[in-house]
Amino acid sequence: MTPAATSHSDLLDTPAAAIRASIRNGFYAGHTAGLAAGKLQCNLAILPEADALDFLRFCQRNPKPCPIVGVGDTGDPMLPTLGRDIDIRTDVPKYRVFREGTLSDEVTDITDVWTDDLVTVALGCSFTFENALLRNGIPVRHIEKGLNVPMFRTDIDLVPAGRFGGKMVVTMRPIPEAQVEQARDISRRFPQAHGAPIASGDPAQIGISDLASPDWGDAVALNPGDVPVYWACGVTPQNVLLDAALPICITHSPGHMLISDVAEDAETTILTDT
Amino acid sequence: MTPAATSHSDLLDTPAAAIRASIRNGFYAGHTAGLAAGKLQCNLAILPEADALDFLRFCQRNPKPCPIVGVGDTGDPMLPTLGRDIDIRTDVPKYRVFREGTLSDEVTDITDVWTDDLVTVALGCSFTFENALLRNGIPVRHIEKGLNVPMFRTDIDLVPAGRFGGKMVVTMRPIPEAQVEQARDISRRFPQAHGAPIASGDPAQIGISDLASPDWGDAVALNPGDVPVYWACGVTPQNVLLDAALPICITHSPGHMLISDVAEDAETTILTDT
Repeated sequence: MTPAATSHSDLLDTPAAAIRASIRNGFYAGHTAGLAAGKLQCNLAILPEADALDFLRFCQRNPKPCPIVGVGDTGDPMLPTLGRDIDIRTDVPKYRVFREGTLSDEVTDITDVWTDDLVTVALGCSFTFENALLRNGIPVRHIEKGLNVPMFRTDIDLVPAGRFGGKMVVTMRPIPEAQVEQARDISRRFPQAHGAPIASGDPAQIGISDLASPDWGDAVALNPGDVPVYWACGVTPQNVLLDAALPICITHSPGHMLISDVAEDAETTILTDT
Repeated sequence: MTPAATSHSDLLDTPAAAIRASIRNGFYAGHTAGLAAGKLQCNLAILPEADALDFLRFCQRNPKPCPIVGVGDTGDPMLPTLGRDIDIRTDVPKYRVFREGTLSDEVTDITDVWTDDLVTVALGCSFTFENALLRNGIPVRHIEKGLNVPMFRTDIDLVPAGRFGGKMVVTMRPIPEAQVEQARDISRRFPQAHGAPIASGDPAQIGISDLASPDWGDAVALNPGDVPVYWACGVTPQNVLLDAALPICITHSPGHMLISDVAEDAETTILTDT
């Protein structure tokens, strides 16, 4: 029996738990931007326990690109601090499975890949502060233009831990010059979602040579009066994981995030109303 | 050669690094309240690597009592993300060494106790938000009265991880009723230092039977018009560690904190200006 497909627009007013159920049951495998308004969405990193302590130390030392919002028990696919009945093997629309640092598979279910030594780490994502910018009347150009956010490698060293280290990846959003300070103040309120920008203005200061040639995502032009503003990006930990060439490592596919039950403006990312 | 003793008042205007040098060299072994104004002070938990992953998961799941501000590499006593040349074996005024859950020693140096499998975890402390309350004209009664803050066991379950779990410990501060909301707003800005209160008013709602009989610290009476306000407390992880009866575990002695070089109002607790 083939399940009936559900579209992104069908899910726009659907609660988080029902969206996860659609994903789990194979009805939806698309991106999650704009879904479950007000709920924290998460970047995903699943790795062997042997490397989990160093990876948590790495994230703790690099809190702007790698804000830890949830960590599972070893071998346990459930994430009760992030939501009710979240099973990380089935509840993310699309996963990438890497072996020895090379993409091995892109799948919609990792039940067959899950093993008793895996640890799930959920990390905050930029959707949280983008929603807050929009609520406060600050334009988000790539959303206006229907594009993906542009992402760039920088020359900013990460603080290493064990085999994890490298350079920070940032996103760039053009912000009207008069609203840059407000954008900074708003995003600073979301330390679980990359926090305040790490820089603004001249891209060369952080080792970006050409804003028209992002390393990932789409080039987004500045409107007249816009300033390029740079935030730490959740692609950073994914790159770091790949460079570490772990025997196995699983991430979400870009844009296909874990939708939690935690309010994105909650004081902590620990669900307290179960 | 016996070093000349240095008093608490001698150190009131001394920079953080110089205070740590006095401590390291045996000139000072007293409490750190009020020292190095504006710098983050830290609760300390040192434990074997075998339990470190579970302890970090425990802290991540209980961010209000256990806000992680720094984690050392296994066997490495230096904490470069928290300050310049911090050697955790010598730079805290007084330590408690526990073996199998029992206090074994209270010492001013743990060089002889340090081993290659130990991991240092630094946790935020309430000095940070108390300073912010005082700067905003909100009285802190136990400081006014020259007492220790009263601490109470509650009936609030912690989210467990591995062998770590139990009940939350809170501090109580009497706050004038008209300033309770402001105190909440101010302390919420410091997620690295217990954040907003977890409750206010009737102590019975969180399982405290008698405010006049704290489990640790001193009883502090409410002034007319004061409301008791409860914050998650850094004694929580200490209790949890003791209950876990690890082969070895080292904490600071109460009030004798690690003084970092991180500004207490910094966006993250990672030192970036080295």
